This record gives sequence, C-alpha cells and structure tokens, in this order.
Amino acid sequence: MYGIRTDLAIEANEIYNENSGASVTSSQIPGVEINVEKYEHAKVTKVNISSDEGEHKLGKAKGNYITIEAIDIKLNSDEVYKQLRELISQELRKIITITDKSTILIVGLGNWNITPDALGPKVVSNVMVTRHIHEYMPEEIETGVRSTCAIAPGVLGITGVETGEIIKGVVDKVKPNIIIVIDALASRSIERVSKTIQISDTGICPGSGVGNSRKEFTMKTMGVPVIAIGVPTVVDAATIANDTIDKVINSLVNQSSKGKEFYETLKSIDKNEKFSLIQQVLGEDMANLMVTPKEIDDIINKISKVISEAINMALHTVINSENAANYTLIH
Amino acid sequence: MYGIRTDLAIEANEIYNENSGASVTSSQIPGVEINVEKYEHAKVTKVNISSDEGEHKLGKAKGNYITIEAIDIKLNSDEVYKQLRELISQELRKIITITDKSTILIVGLGNWNITPDALGPKVVSNVMVTRHIHEYMPEEIETGVRSTCAIAPGVLGITGVETGEIIKGVVDKVKPNIIIVIDALASRSIERVSKTIQISDTGICPGSGVGNSRKEFTMKTMGVPVIAIGVPTVVDAATIANDTIDKVINSLVNQSSKGKEFYETLKSIDKNEKFSLIQQVLGEDMANLMVTPKEIDDIINKISKVISEAINMALHTVINSENAANYTLIH
Amino acid sequence: MYGIRTDLAIEANEIYNENSGASVTSSQIPGVEINVEKYEHAKVTKVNISSDEGEHKLGKAKGNYITIEAIDIKLNSDEVYKQLRELISQELRKIITITDKSTILIVGLGNWNITPDALGPKVVSNVMVTRHIHEYMPEEIETGVRSTCAIAPGVLGITGVETGEIIKGVVDKVKPNIIIVIDALASRSIERVSKTIQISDTGICPGSGVGNSRKEFTMKTMGVPVIAIGVPTVVDAATIANDTIDKVINSLVNQSSKGKEFYETLKSIDKNEKFSLIQQVLGEDMANLMVTPKEIDDIINKISKVISEAINMALHTVINSENAANYTLIH
Amino acid sequence: MYGIRTDLAIEANEIYNENSGASVTSSQIPGVEINVEKYEHAKVTKVNISSDEGEHKLGKAKGNYITIEAIDIKLNSDEVYKQLRELISQELRKIITITDKSTILIVGLGNWNITPDALGPKVVSNVMVTRHIHEYMPEEIETGVRSTCAIAPGVLGITGVETGEIIKGVVDKVKPNIIIVIDALASRSIERVSKTIQISDTGICPGSGVGNSRKEFTMKTMGVPVIAIGVPTVVDAATIANDTIDKVINSLVNQSSKGKEFYETLKSIDKNEKFSLIQQVLGEDMANLMVTPKEIDDIINKISKVISEAINMALHTVINSENAANYTLIH
Repeated sequence: MYGIRTDLAIEANEIYNENSGASVTSSQIPGVEINVEKYEHAKVTKVNISSDEGEHKLGKAKGNYITIEAIDIKLNSDEVYKQLRELISQELRKIITITDKSTILIVGLGNWNITPDALGPKVVSNVMVTRHIHEYMPEEIETGVRSTCAIAPGVLGITGVETGEIIKGVVDKVKPNIIIVIDALASRSIERVSKTIQISDTGICPGSGVGNSRKEFTMKTMGVPVIAIGVPTVVDAATIANDTIDKVINSLVNQSSKGKEFYETLKSIDKNEKFSLIQQVLGEDMANLMVTPKEIDDIINKISKVISEAINMALHTVINSENAANYTLIH
Repeated sequence: MYGIRTDLAIEANEIYNENSGASVTSSQIPGVEINVEKYEHAKVTKVNISSDEGEHKLGKAKGNYITIEAIDIKLNSDEVYKQLRELISQELRKIITITDKSTILIVGLGNWNITPDALGPKVVSNVMVTRHIHEYMPEEIETGVRSTCAIAPGVLGITGVETGEIIKGVVDKVKPNIIIVIDALASRSIERVSKTIQISDTGICPGSGVGNSRKEFTMKTMGVPVIAIGVPTVVDAATIANDTIDKVINSLVNQSSKGKEFYETLKSIDKNEKFSLIQQVLGEDMANLMVTPKEIDDIINKISKVISEAINMALHTVINSENAANYTLIH
Repeated sequence: MYGIRTDLAIEANEIYNENSGASVTSSQIPGVEINVEKYEHAKVTKVNISSDEGEHKLGKAKGNYITIEAIDIKLNSDEVYKQLRELISQELRKIITITDKSTILIVGLGNWNITPDALGPKVVSNVMVTRHIHEYMPEEIETGVRSTCAIAPGVLGITGVETGEIIKGVVDKVKPNIIIVIDALASRSIERVSKTIQISDTGICPGSGVGNSRKEFTMKTMGVPVIAIGVPTVVDAATIANDTIDKVINSLVNQSSKGKEFYETLKSIDKNEKFSLIQQVLGEDMANLMVTPKEIDDIINKISKVISEAINMALHTVINSENAANYTLIH
Repeated sequence: MYGIRTDLAIEANEIYNENSGASVTSSQIPGVEINVEKYEHAKVTKVNISSDEGEHKLGKAKGNYITIEAIDIKLNSDEVYKQLRELISQELRKIITITDKSTILIVGLGNWNITPDALGPKVVSNVMVTRHIHEYMPEEIETGVRSTCAIAPGVLGITGVETGEIIKGVVDKVKPNIIIVIDALASRSIERVSKTIQISDTGICPGSGVGNSRKEFTMKTMGVPVIAIGVPTVVDAATIANDTIDKVINSLVNQSSKGKEFYETLKSIDKNEKFSLIQQVLGEDMANLMVTPKEIDDIINKISKVISEAINMALHTVINSENAANYTLIH
C-alpha cells in the first residue's frame, strides 16, 4: 500500500489501480464491485467489498462504502445543500435497519479543540436527541420521531480512556439497536478534502483522522451494527509531498527537451523506496503537521450541518428536506 | 424548608437558624457541628452532619461539607488565587483516600453551552489526564503522578441519556478507586454566587445547578467514594425576589414613621405562604430565568482554573502551588 | 420615570400610562401615536413620537419605534422564523432610504464575551459583506447586491476607546450613506426578553444593554442616518424585584381576607420611594447582576440569525425570504 | 527570491545565502548586520538592515528585526515561558520610545475564526487596557501604568474595509504615540512554525500571514512609529513541497550508488523554474491549503499569552515577570 494514508475506500482502490494500470472507477479485484451515479451537484461512488482478497488488497473491511463527492459545495447554494442532505439521508436509510421502536446512539468522535477533528462533536451537537423525552414524557413525542441519544466523549489525550471503552460503557447501559458514528478522516487527495462524505456499514477505527490509531469500533466490539459517516478534513503532509513529486517528475518528462531520459529513470524509482525516503527527510516535525483548507472552520460548520440534517431525516419520518433546518440547533 | 433553593450546606443551616433565631455560625441541631477558620483572603466553614436529625432538618446527606468563601476573589491578585488553590487542595487531600496505585476519575457535570453551567466541563478540560500514559507509556510517568482520567458527558437534554448512567458505564470499564465530580450549584444568596467553593464527601445530585433534577451521584450508585466540588453560579429569581421583599419590609419597619404597625403585620405573614405566592405571581417565565453576575464568563474561567490547579495539586505530589499553573492548559 | 430601566419605547409608554391609568396600546400624550398590527406569529406596535412633550415624557428621542413581538419564537418553527424575517426586513425597507449606489455600514455593539451582550457582534458576523468586492472585483457583483461593510469593535472596557469614537473614525474613512447599528437592550418585562425586536430611525445610545452608559450614536454624531435594531436580552434585577413586589401586594389585596386595609396602604406608597428603597436594600452586588433566560445562548444564536437574514433581505434585492439562509454564515 | 514565501528577515537572509553559498548566521550583503545571542531556552538573532542594497536583496524594509526562537517551547515549562516573556519584553523596551504620558495603541491583525490567523486577536484580548480609566477615573490608576488601548478589527473579508483604513480612522481619533501591531506570519521552515517570535521597528504589511495582501502598515501610513510582533503559524504548501523535493534529491545524490549523475542533473535545474513548476502542478486547490502543526489551537493560546504578558511588562513598570500572569485575562 506504499504507506499512503487514506480512510476512503474509493482512494484505496485508486491507489491499487494506479499500480496495476487500471481505470479509476472500476476494480481489478474479484469481489470488489464499483458503481458510479452522477447527480447535478454530486457524484456517488459505491464500493462493495465481498471477498477476502478485496479486503486484503484494499486494506478495508468487507462491506459497503458509499462515497458522495460534493463537487459544488463551494457554491454555498441551498440547492447544493438540499441535494446533499437528500443523497446522504437516502443512502443512510438504505443501510440502516430500524423499526419505530429502535433506539439509535449517535457518536461523534474527535476533538472539539482541533478544528479539522471537530466534525464528529459538531454533528452530534446538532442532531435531534429524543430518548429522554421518549422515556419521561412519551405523550409529547410526535409520531415519526424515533428514540435517539448522542455523545461526543472526546479523545484519548483528553479523557485518558479509550473512546471505544467509553462508548461500550454507554452501550451497555443504553442498549441501542444501532450506532451511527461520525468522524473526521484523512484523504490522500487535496481535491477530496472537505468535499467528500463516506458512509459505510463496516464501522470505523477511531483516530484514523488526525490523531493516533485507537481501538476498533465495529459490530464485533459494540455488539450492534455500526454505521460510519466520515469526511476527510486533512491530508498527510508526506502524502502531499509524494504526490507533488510525482506530478513534477511527470511534468518534467513531458516538458523538458534535454534530460528526458533522466526523468524517466527518476520515475522508475521504486514507489515504496521513494515514499519512505520522503518520510525520512521530512522527519518528526512533518509527522506532526496537518494540511487543511484555509477556510476549514467554515467548511466544518457547513458540512456538519448538512450531515446532522441528513441523519435527522434518515431517522425521523417527520423530518424531510424542506423542514430539516428547523430541527437542527445553531451553535 | 420554605422552598428556598440552595445547594450549600452552610446556607441550609443558615435558613434553619433564621427560623429558630440562632446565630449563623453555629448549629441548633444535635449531630450537626460547625467550625469556622479564618484566613487572609478566605473563610473556611466546615459543616459535619452525623445524625439522622441533622440530615432531615438540613435536607443534606450525612457527611462533611467544607465551604471556602473567597472573599477577595475580585481583587484578581495572584496572592488570593494562591491561597485559594492551597486551601482547596489541602481540604481535598484530607477527604480523598488514595494510594500511589489509585486511579481517579474526574467528572465535569453541566452544559458547556450555558455559561454558568459550564464550570464542570471547564475544570475537566484543565485537569491533568495521565491514565493513558500510565497504561501505554508507563516509563514516561514521573514519580508522584497518579493515574487520572476525566470526562464531561454533557446534560440529559444534549445526550438523551441520564448523566449518571453514562458515568456508571465508564466506571464499569475504568474501575476507578475514587470519583471527583465538579458541578455548578445554586445559592440563595447573591453574595456567595461565584465566590464560594463547597467540597463534600457525600457526592451530589447532578442538575441541582441550573438544570432539572436528575439521578443521584453517590457511593451508593457508583460503588466507589464520590467527592463533590461545587461553586454556586446562579441564584433563583424567586429567591432574590423573596429576599428583597424581606429586606424592603424590614427597612420600612425601621424607617417609616407612619405605618409601622402595617409592616409589622406584613412581616408576620407565614413564610411558606409568602414564598409560594411569589412563585405564583412570577409564573412560568420566571422559573425559566437565572440571575448571574454580569462578568460570569470571566468568573467561570478564573474559578475553574483555580479548581483545576487545586485538583492537580491534591492528586499529584509533583505539583505544588508554585508550579501548578504549568500543569493546566489554557483554552 | 421611577428609575425603571427600559430601552423599549413601547414600555416607556406603558410605564407612563400605568401612572395615568390609561390603556397600554394607546397614548395619552399629544404628539405620540401608537398603532398595533397583528400577525399570526407576531404583534407589531409602532410608536411615533413627534412632539417635544412626547420626547420629554417618554424619555425617548423624536422618531419612529417599531416593536415586533415574536410571541411564538419558542416554537422553533421555520414558519415563525419566516414571518419574523419578512416583518423585520419589510419594516427596515420602509425606514431605510438608499439607492443602488449606497454604501451601508452595519455596526454590532456589545461584548462577544458576555452572552446576552453578544447580539450585535453575532449579527455582524452573519450579514453579507460586499464593499471590498464592489471595490476590487466589481465584475463579480450580482445585480441587486449593494455595497455593505460591517464592524463589531467591542466595548469600552475591552478597547479603552469609546465605541462611538471608533465608529466615527471608520465612518470618516468609509463614508457610508447610512448606518445600521445592532445592540442588546434592557427590558422592564420578563415576558419581552429575547422575544422582541425594536427597530428605530433615531439611532441609539450604546451601552444601554448590559454595560455602562456611553456616547450618543445618532445622525447628529455620525453625520448620516442611523437605524437602530435592538433586542432586550436582560432585565434589571431591581426591576424584577419591584414588579414582583407590586404583583405580590396586588395578590394580597385580592386574596387576603384579614389585612386588606394594610395592603391597600402598602400599595399606596410612593412609587419613587419604593423603587429607590429596593435599589438600596439590594445594594452594590445586585447592581452587578443580570437576569436572563436559561437558554440565552441558544436564543441569541437564533434571533441573531433571523436579524442577519432580515438585514440581508432589506439591503439586497437578490435576497428573499426563501433563499435568505444561503446568504448567512453559520459559526 | 524564487517565490518562496517568508515573513521572517532571518529566513530571507538564509535563502539569499543558500544561493550564494554563505553561512546562515552572517550576511554577505553590505549594510546587513547579523548578531546571535544564545540563552538557555532561546536563541535571539538580530538582523539590522541599513542599506538600500540590503533592503532590495532581502526584500525587507530597512530597520531592526529581532527573532526569538523558543527552541524549548514544547516543554510546557514555566521556566521556558518566563525566559521568553523576559526576552520579548526586554527587546520591546529597547525599540519602543515612550514617556509616562504616552498612549499606546495595540492592534491585533487577523481573523478570529481561522485558528492560525487568530494570534493577533488573542493577544489583544489578553493585554491590559487602561486608556478609559486614565480618562474617566485617573485617580484609580497606579503609578507605573501607562495609557493603553487595543483593537482587533478583523480582516477585509469580514469587514469589507481595509484593515489599514479602520486603524487609521481609530488613530485619527485616539492619537496614540506609538502603535504595536501583532500578526500571524508565514514561515518557509517547518521547524520555525509557532516557535519563533519576530519583533521589528519597521511595521508590517497585514495579510502576509494566512490571508490576502492588504495595505501597508507603517510609520508612513499611520503617522506614528509602528512596532510589529509576529509569529509564523503556517507554512505554504508549495514551500513544503519544494523543500521536500530538494531534500529528497540531496538524499538520492548521497545514497544512490547507481544514478548519481542523474540526480546531480536534477539538482541543477533552475530553482525558479522548479518552484514555478511545483506551483503549477499543485494548482489552485493547493494555493488554498495551509500547513500547520496538529496542536495549533493549543500553541496559539500559549504563545499569545506569553506575548500579552511581555507587552504588559514592556509598557507598564508595575508589571514584571513574577506578577505578569495576574494582569492577563483567561478566555
């Protein structure tokens, strides 16, 4: 896998294909299926991994990965937001199996104090929470409003406790029927950062975003299905350097009249060797850097609002695209 | 108890005494002992309740209640802060029984989004957290640093889950030896708001501050000792109205030449009747009001820093009054 | 005026009427006209003061005061918000005289760090700002978008400079055609707090909200028309105590069988005497208290969003009630 | 200058030297003097530019540039902070000429909402402000406390007005004797980000940090001396890519046995050509990226506190390294 860090199944497949010369939107691997749907303001790519081979080669657990690329999100237009919340809630509804009596636990992973890692806590602070009303004032609950609860416990460095342990403790008390977990991810591609939403039915490993690797967060560890929603908000500095070097070399090969053969040689350096060399020269300081868009604060606010609305729409039949904004809070 | 709302044992005793004509700094009730210590910038009042009669008459569980009144906190002077963190950490050390191997769970109750209720979360965000280092990098732990973890789960209206349930879930996983829980309180007296710290070994009932009444939070429910630290940050509007009326009537009795007898009569109205009358005329809107100092944001920041430092000093022998500031974070 | 503090013309008139026995929605004073309009979710009261006598008796400068009472704002319904932003923008459009070439300066008074005083800065952070685009990239400006700029300079205690001086400095450089200034106000009535929007063409005196009295902020001092938008977010503690006492006494007069004559006498105490007595017994601590709704953070967020949208709709013809949300930022 | 973006004079000289083969801590240019002082936890480098040639070749205005590199800032130790605030205040005192009657205007440039750009506003929110007390309550001012005022007006995209215009407006009203302006800078070096403080007597061009280029901010435009304090908080993504490529190539030249000659050739590509190539391949998305340390929020809080304390110490003789913390607020 050449050490390039990505949490997106769609990118894992791209990287695999780059090394085997295949096109981006298909898969070479048996048991990996890819489907692309195009919408006016978004592109939806569905990766289904059903074989051990696919799991192994892409480094992603078996299951469904739906990637919604919000190509027009910068337009700041309500039309775009509307399509996004509709697509996300639609896809969520397809992979969430619940009845009217289900209790849903929504978990926001990440650290409020690091902007690109605050996506999970922000979404959680905006979703509608009703479990206590169901319990203490059931007569006040409208038809079409399910029992939901939500927690954003913070990260290991803040609590001193594995996030998975905290959530498992809450799950043991609350006994939800399903968990929806939201986290910031890392992408290998600048273009995808903060424009892409990945939904999957496989759960996630917290900390794959900005922080350290922590414990697994899946059906196996939690005892109930775990739906994961993630948005890449950072790119690894080493990944950016690596991609840039590749592009520069390609460009030199094409443009340069004189040293063409030199660059061809350069291009042929073993990819693993090159990436580990980059990590070496960048050193420890670089490992501690993150690359984000300048307007990351604004982006996190907007995309977390869209995701909150979509979750509300997917879970409560009284909420639809038209009235969704009324059911989120603004902080 | 006349419906006046206070979370301070010292005030519960005052109210009892007012109705029996006794002085404020002693107790009339068998099994209730009161001791006062005076310091340059603080007054420490210790209320020990050991009898069922005391428990019943004061409406407070048996145990120790140490009240530190920071009379000079407005001076904004480091000398005052130094004395405060020393007094608080000293009193904490007396009632916390731990060994070098103990794990301490620090819990911040309350709602980050309501300033006067944010004391608990603020303290938690500033205390030193080491449990994960003890677990994963024990060689990096200095001698004199105990294992601490911390959580501020939010309130029922935000999570949909009783705070007690969330904490019990975490306790079941982490198995701490002791819990320290920090919460904002309600006081009956304007003068005490945000100038008083109450420490007790009885645990607390979350939500006695700004919010609703929620579940018990004690040794009985948690299975380990629960130390409570509280600061009154609000006064009930009805309490203020009631106190004002009493003062106005007293003033009229003393000043007015003409209608002295009228006011004497007014003064003699049954206290319960009067208070319930006030609550009635104030109505629902009033129940939803809170009375706080104007500079509440600044006060919450300062007092939560002092409490964080004092907790760090009480738990970790490497931390003392001189270096305490180095071990808290600034947000 | 009995010392009762209100920034609302509608309340100044009410207080005047209470003392002369007139009904609330009319005026006894020549040169003061009052009109009431009722809408499904709001009540609009227009007070026009045209005489010196009106100015003097109500303690408010000559001009128009439009008060929109958002009686259903707690419903948290988009229908209510829609009607509010439509009413506010409609009334703004009536009293703002601008051309397509006008530059509008929007000023948010108040202190970001004190929640109930943060209304002005919050509105400013949400309004659309275009002056720099008009200046540097005029080709990017849509038809129907006017030149707007915005500033929230902070309060005297933060800057050390009178807010009026800072704004005058900016006005001298920017030379706007009109100023819209937003500030938090004080109300005498619990019921109106955070549910009422007052628009006036008279300008305002900054600091009438939470802080101290500062300099005038009007056409006279700024050299251009000043439109003021205010929302009461606090009630004076003394005012609440005073009103409560009145209500309690009234209640005693009606209910009590025995001492009816006593209370009648009490009721007849001179109002000025009683209010100053209350202020006396409450003392300095009370002067420093503010009374706000518990959910003030949430309310400030919501009402500032509605006002931002209404200002955008009033100033830019491309913005209407349907697309208004797309033109405000969420922080 | 190869397009590499740096706001630090020390780095401008390094880049110049790299291209002429000179050592880093001296200068090749007549009229540019460099002195280095070493302290236990910091390194102070003073660059004095006195010639037109120096100004031109380094791309920095004539004047003094003092760079304090806080090599141990990560230790989170009070000893380190103490040395830093002492060094900064000492250097400030040397270049600030004021009397007891002087008024000092402190200006925080940058955008509160973008963490790495919030340095200026954060410092301003922590410095002691006294001008209003000097003016209205002179009897309350201690000896040794000068008249200070402070403003953080926000950025062009937020206000619609050039920051320079706003400040000039305030300067015209307040008539300060000197201006101290604080801003976030860009560095070319990962190692210096958030560990380096540059003080200069030349003023600055706002926006050299994260945002766009805006107007000059100097004695010439303001009419009084302008002291600039800056901390690099971001690195340009293109700069990182460029430096990484250089390091990779160097590494290949040294390690590789086979293609040594290839890499030598690659190394000799014209630097300008290479950098513009990188910018090209990175494209527009990259231009919008910023590279910051992961813990940028924490760093900005800490370093802004140190700078606030140092400014207070430099301006007010009652404040010294021991009591400095008492004079800053904690938000």
